[in-house]
Amino acid sequence: MKIGLFGFGKTGRAVASVLLQEQELDLQWVIRRSQQADTQTVAEQLSIGSAHPARIYAQDTLSFIDLLQQQPVDVIIDFSSEHGIDTYGEIAAKRGIAIISAISHYSEEKIAYLKKLAQHTVVMHSPNITLGVNFLMMAAKILQKIAPATDIEIIEEHFKDKPEISGTAKVIADGLDLPQDNIKTVRAGGIIGVHEILFGFPYQTVRLKHESIAREAFGTGILFALKNIRDKHNGFYDMESLLKPYFQAAA
Amino acid sequence: MKIGLFGFGKTGRAVASVLLQEQELDLQWVIRRSQQADTQTVAEQLSIGSAHPARIYAQDTLSFIDLLQQQPVDVIIDFSSEHGIDTYGEIAAKRGIAIISAISHYSEEKIAYLKKLAQHTVVMHSPNITLGVNFLMMAAKILQKIAPATDIEIIEEHFKDKPEISGTAKVIADGLDLPQDNIKTVRAGGIIGVHEILFGFPYQTVRLKHESIAREAFGTGILFALKNIRDKHNGFYDMESLLKPYFQAAA
Amino acid sequence: MKIGLFGFGKTGRAVASVLLQEQELDLQWVIRRSQQADTQTVAEQLSIGSAHPARIYAQDTLSFIDLLQQQPVDVIIDFSSEHGIDTYGEIAAKRGIAIISAISHYSEEKIAYLKKLAQHTVVMHSPNITLGVNFLMMAAKILQKIAPATDIEIIEEHFKDKPEISGTAKVIADGLDLPQDNIKTVRAGGIIGVHEILFGFPYQTVRLKHESIAREAFGTGILFALKNIRDKHNGFYDMESLLKPYFQAAA
Amino acid sequence: MKIGLFGFGKTGRAVASVLLQEQELDLQWVIRRSQQADTQTVAEQLSIGSAHPARIYAQDTLSFIDLLQQQPVDVIIDFSSEHGIDTYGEIAAKRGIAIISAISHYSEEKIAYLKKLAQHTVVMHSPNITLGVNFLMMAAKILQKIAPATDIEIIEEHFKDKPEISGTAKVIADGLDLPQDNIKTVRAGGIIGVHEILFGFPYQTVRLKHESIAREAFGTGILFALKNIRDKHNGFYDMESLLKPYFQAAA
Repeated sequence: MKIGLFGFGKTGRAVASVLLQEQELDLQWVIRRSQQADTQTVAEQLSIGSAHPARIYAQDTLSFIDLLQQQPVDVIIDFSSEHGIDTYGEIAAKRGIAIISAISHYSEEKIAYLKKLAQHTVVMHSPNITLGVNFLMMAAKILQKIAPATDIEIIEEHFKDKPEISGTAKVIADGLDLPQDNIKTVRAGGIIGVHEILFGFPYQTVRLKHESIAREAFGTGILFALKNIRDKHNGFYDMESLLKPYFQAAA
Repeated sequence: MKIGLFGFGKTGRAVASVLLQEQELDLQWVIRRSQQADTQTVAEQLSIGSAHPARIYAQDTLSFIDLLQQQPVDVIIDFSSEHGIDTYGEIAAKRGIAIISAISHYSEEKIAYLKKLAQHTVVMHSPNITLGVNFLMMAAKILQKIAPATDIEIIEEHFKDKPEISGTAKVIADGLDLPQDNIKTVRAGGIIGVHEILFGFPYQTVRLKHESIAREAFGTGILFALKNIRDKHNGFYDMESLLKPYFQAAA
Repeated sequence: MKIGLFGFGKTGRAVASVLLQEQELDLQWVIRRSQQADTQTVAEQLSIGSAHPARIYAQDTLSFIDLLQQQPVDVIIDFSSEHGIDTYGEIAAKRGIAIISAISHYSEEKIAYLKKLAQHTVVMHSPNITLGVNFLMMAAKILQKIAPATDIEIIEEHFKDKPEISGTAKVIADGLDLPQDNIKTVRAGGIIGVHEILFGFPYQTVRLKHESIAREAFGTGILFALKNIRDKHNGFYDMESLLKPYFQAAA
Repeated sequence: MKIGLFGFGKTGRAVASVLLQEQELDLQWVIRRSQQADTQTVAEQLSIGSAHPARIYAQDTLSFIDLLQQQPVDVIIDFSSEHGIDTYGEIAAKRGIAIISAISHYSEEKIAYLKKLAQHTVVMHSPNITLGVNFLMMAAKILQKIAPATDIEIIEEHFKDKPEISGTAKVIADGLDLPQDNIKTVRAGGIIGVHEILFGFPYQTVRLKHESIAREAFGTGILFALKNIRDKHNGFYDMESLLKPYFQAAA
């Protein structure tokens, strides 16, 4: 599977390092926002001792169509910004290149645009592409239906300077129809990220807990998405729609 | 819903106290193994300040058919022993009284007998009828299929004198095809019961954790079973088959 | 060591059951607030299968001096109310009977009175006589001095209906000079009581965590107090002053 | 305070990055094992956007006495190997330069040598200079003396490939006179490092837990050591002897 990556900020770099470690995947190129192309390969930039030849290109000076001509890809992964799609959207839809976008905030217009592209290719969008968090959110919704009278509290812990409240915790609260008061926010030191969904039954407690270790966790989410869009028809997908079949096949 | 309960040991008593608190349920009688009937009501025995009239009968001196005649029930709940079924099985199947059995160890013959009865009434059997543990087991199986390469460890904590290893932990390990080496057994003080299923991803960790607070948790499992067998056809059910529809309706 | 106990509410009963299990201790009597004496022994009341002869007396109809004459004690333990001390204070000081009071709220006058009694006997008072919580509070103060720049958060979890915020959490926050904003309050189901003091360093986290299992934990605190007042001079003590020597002997 | 650092492996680099962030400290140089000196500064090597002029020297080609002449230091920090001390020991003792060594494994001869040097300067040695772990070890020893009958279990979690059992867990077990059976070893995914010392009381549980976030935690330990050796007489110190005064001043 040939892959192209938009975005080479902290998260983009982390995802690139995960992709380079997968033998079955073939990273073709990375495109980043900068004035000039890099003389180093992706592997060199990441200090990974690898002879992998994928190179980094500068968005501003690049002819994207020429690049695709020389180094075609099956999937484009986007960790750049809301505007990345403007460069690759049209041509990806035309050529049936799948799109996996992890952009956190799209305007409504952009979401509409993504859905239009999805008529012609597979488009997957997730603002938080961490596998563990998305799984827990779905499991929590199920447990809430199983035991509707149970008290649910969400505890999220992050590093001191993170502005309150974690976006992921808000999404969890929304998904469970809980007011934001049920989110307890802990801020201390260098905690990378902990989300716990606590179900308080009268005589037992269930805790669904996710701990982030490193930004590379987004790479694990991308690997899952890559594997699970393979057999999908054209259309618009998110993490929930990719995870759903696993839940439906339960037991 | 009229209910009869077999078994008034520690767990039977705890379940009875939960049943008495539910307005929609109507506990008719409790049958326990002893030579003579009790002069106290269930509520009096449990020191619950309630005027609930349900009485306790002694299995040995009782004519069960007469009791059913006077105080018919819709469901029989069994927390007694492997032999409880001998008293009520036949007649329950004949009259279409549902059976919920929480007996831990049945011989193969008894299981076969239960399944035969299930041709004529709803029979539900669960050796561990705790809602939280059963939910976690099913969620864990799903996550394992989502992320098959993930390392899974099971940590169980119990009071000092519990003989190793917790049966529930073994069932979890079996369900996930894990060797018993993956169960880490902690024994200390008066810990009632903790089971954690830890999924170690490369860059994130998911912990599914259940903490028992009191034996009454079995009562919560019974309430769930009572609610979810209502619309079921005759047949043999376990916790997994009652929980399955909730997972299938996911998202 | 001969012991008398004031108070036979939920906590008094739990403490009595712990005392009865200790071979080295000799519970002489329990005094409770009620109109008439009990015909049952303490062991019978607690359904402990024990031939222990200690009886329960009613405060209102009792001549305390006569009781002490017939069944003298070395220590009086008080789990009754602010007014218990009025019955036994004077005579305990006179006869050198040690006092261990676990009353939560004393008026200033009563505290002054306790300190006056302490000139003539050993008086120990602790509003929260749980060993674990008191230890953690002292350990936390030390860690704060070792690493003064560290962020500290207090997370307390209790059953749904507990009115916010746990008094123990407030005492911890006060002891560490933290504003109440640093206390995160979780309320769900039947959680008995969890207190966690979280120290967030830039690259590591320390969590000091206490979980209550049952009210009998107060009994463990009493056993510690009984053991540690033995060699003490007359004076006024609290949990901190009994624990202090263990910290000072560190390493 | 002028500082020199021996060792620029993964841990040495992490410690250097912490030292560079402290305004009160003045890193003069780093010495690493390699054939030739580096042309980059420490800050450049670590990709820290800082104009800090400290340079990296190669141990093999260096005249250490000349370096000290030009760039004298008050303290030498050693994260190199057992042999680092051979280069700087003698001269540090002679000039009264304090030594902080974090070498994990010294031979008995080397320890004897360190103690000899300690007659002439302050020598601090800790094989695990993490502040949190050392604090917890001391706190655990105290709690064990307070409640000698309590069951203690040690749970340590690390990444999949870490060979069992964590050295730190062994040191904790030794310090508490516990057999290695009380250490429960969890290995999964990319867990950086968790150590929990669990005290199981009959009716309550105390958990002392340390979670590593990053290797830089050793830097925090070094900062503590630097601060606390300032007013010390010549002699041999470890983390315990630096932490001890904080415990002794308890309450």
